[in-house]
Amino acid sequence: MAITLKDVAERAGVSRAAVSRTFTEGASVSAKTRAKVERAASELGYSPNMLARSLTTRRTQLVGLVSNNFRNPVFLQIFDLFTRAIQERGLRPLLVNLSDENDPARSVQLLRQYSVDGVIVASSHLPDGFAAAFSKAGLPVVHAFGRAVPEPEVPIVAIDNVSAGRLAAETLVAHGYRRLGYIGGPEQASTTQDRLLGFSAAAQEKGASVVASFAGAYSFDAGRHEMQRILQGPRAEAYFCADDVLSIGALSAVEDAGLKVPEDLGIIGLNDMEMAGWANIGLTTIHQPFEAIVRASVDLIVERFNDPARKPEARLFPCHVVERRTLKPAV
Amino acid sequence: MAITLKDVAERAGVSRAAVSRTFTEGASVSAKTRAKVERAASELGYSPNMLARSLTTRRTQLVGLVSNNFRNPVFLQIFDLFTRAIQERGLRPLLVNLSDENDPARSVQLLRQYSVDGVIVASSHLPDGFAAAFSKAGLPVVHAFGRAVPEPEVPIVAIDNVSAGRLAAETLVAHGYRRLGYIGGPEQASTTQDRLLGFSAAAQEKGASVVASFAGAYSFDAGRHEMQRILQGPRAEAYFCADDVLSIGALSAVEDAGLKVPEDLGIIGLNDMEMAGWANIGLTTIHQPFEAIVRASVDLIVERFNDPARKPEARLFPCHVVERRTLKPAV
Repeated sequence: MAITLKDVAERAGVSRAAVSRTFTEGASVSAKTRAKVERAASELGYSPNMLARSLTTRRTQLVGLVSNNFRNPVFLQIFDLFTRAIQERGLRPLLVNLSDENDPARSVQLLRQYSVDGVIVASSHLPDGFAAAFSKAGLPVVHAFGRAVPEPEVPIVAIDNVSAGRLAAETLVAHGYRRLGYIGGPEQASTTQDRLLGFSAAAQEKGASVVASFAGAYSFDAGRHEMQRILQGPRAEAYFCADDVLSIGALSAVEDAGLKVPEDLGIIGLNDMEMAGWANIGLTTIHQPFEAIVRASVDLIVERFNDPARKPEARLFPCHVVERRTLKPAV
Repeated sequence: MAITLKDVAERAGVSRAAVSRTFTEGASVSAKTRAKVERAASELGYSPNMLARSLTTRRTQLVGLVSNNFRNPVFLQIFDLFTRAIQERGLRPLLVNLSDENDPARSVQLLRQYSVDGVIVASSHLPDGFAAAFSKAGLPVVHAFGRAVPEPEVPIVAIDNVSAGRLAAETLVAHGYRRLGYIGGPEQASTTQDRLLGFSAAAQEKGASVVASFAGAYSFDAGRHEMQRILQGPRAEAYFCADDVLSIGALSAVEDAGLKVPEDLGIIGLNDMEMAGWANIGLTTIHQPFEAIVRASVDLIVERFNDPARKPEARLFPCHVVERRTLKPAV
């Protein structure tokens, strides 16, 4: 005899509506009720038939979590947050690794094959047009860590990278630095470009100079090599590295060269990933609110499932500076 | 007019069988042929209907990649390898985050809801019985980084952690150390237990002593706190930390205490994660062959799809030492 939703509700001591909500994507149910229902369902051997439901609703509950950032440790934190937030909404996170992919058309094909209901792109530097290509192919899309423009083609959830760049310059000037340096990641990454834009503008307003270069990737080795190159010639007093892992690579090069941080040279990063706070690193950095960005991205993809024609917006979150030990004291 | 497999084959200039293999889970096809077929399919707008196929085959091509390790940076490398290997076989990786889960029954329920064809458990320290519970619920399971026992309940792909512990002790003795220390992760983790077993046995055979303790987690902070505690009292000459991120935490505590590595104290880790090779770390460590373990795990799950009754085996891979700068020279 088949187990029904009613049986589960009776055993769990909750309403049938509560059971239904527990197994409905995006529906709200308290953690306590969800636990009761899942336990009762498990004990009775009840499981809602996702395949059959998929055919009725034409929905698979699969959310493609698309990224190409598998070398930057901050993405482990990001995947942790995304998988939890997607699971909590009763959706299923399909992790799509586009590390070696340069062709949006092939990726659209892959995601079509994957039968995802929608896509969250979590990257600041997929080649141009990936998120837009998914959207044009009829997939609901949200771009986390994308570029905030006034009329985005797809919904964007991010920080304002220009403002973050300004904040970095203002912080360095407040700490007494005047000759500033900028180390970006991949030159084509919108984050690298926008952070430089804000950094240069604010530095100029404050009467500070900026020398900029690009490490080519957001990685330890890239930051280290770029700083080694910089230390061959005349250097700035302090550097804004556009990402924490770049900063940690740059720090290692500075220390190997026998220079002291912050006495001889200051460094400020961006992200405030867990490692930035490790006692042997202690990086002063700009905190990017990952948890808020992830929650808003999942909220927005659920909104788009229900209202695909909704006009795309950019939802931006503020940053703040976390002071540790890589800048000399503020003056 | 519907696009057929024949249309795709003609456009790609390959056989119909090659197109079919490209879109069949687990089938072998060269990267070059796959690229041709996917491009042609994309240009023609052809996509095999996964939902319809799922109803015929009762298969979803979804592989649950189950883990609770979202704090140890090595898992970003592991997720990168797994998602690539699963994608290459035409399967779809569903990332299942069990970080806060202690109840195997709830997890079985979750995976049933998720309609996965099978599960790869990638963890050395889920509470007992998770992998076995999935298997008892009728799901094909492979446990990567599990414990190698003679008659495993589910297929295991791992290193022999007892041998790895032996190798650590032999290496420390070969480098002239006699009073040895061991810092484990979570005390109940099979990796922590088995590495200690081999380490103690080999140390005893070589006439070296061992003092063991447990940091409670495989994390930077755990390694740092445990080493800070150790440095309050009499200490060993060299420590085997059962994981690289533990080792890096321990290193930071040693350096903060004004001691030099390797002059005052030696450290050897295990994993050889990318960060171990960073120039500011340079950890001597035991290399765990992640790529081979991941490939074998995906091979085994595909085998179990085709032959669910196959007797579970443990497939073990050898380790080797990578010498960097945290042990004094071999004597």
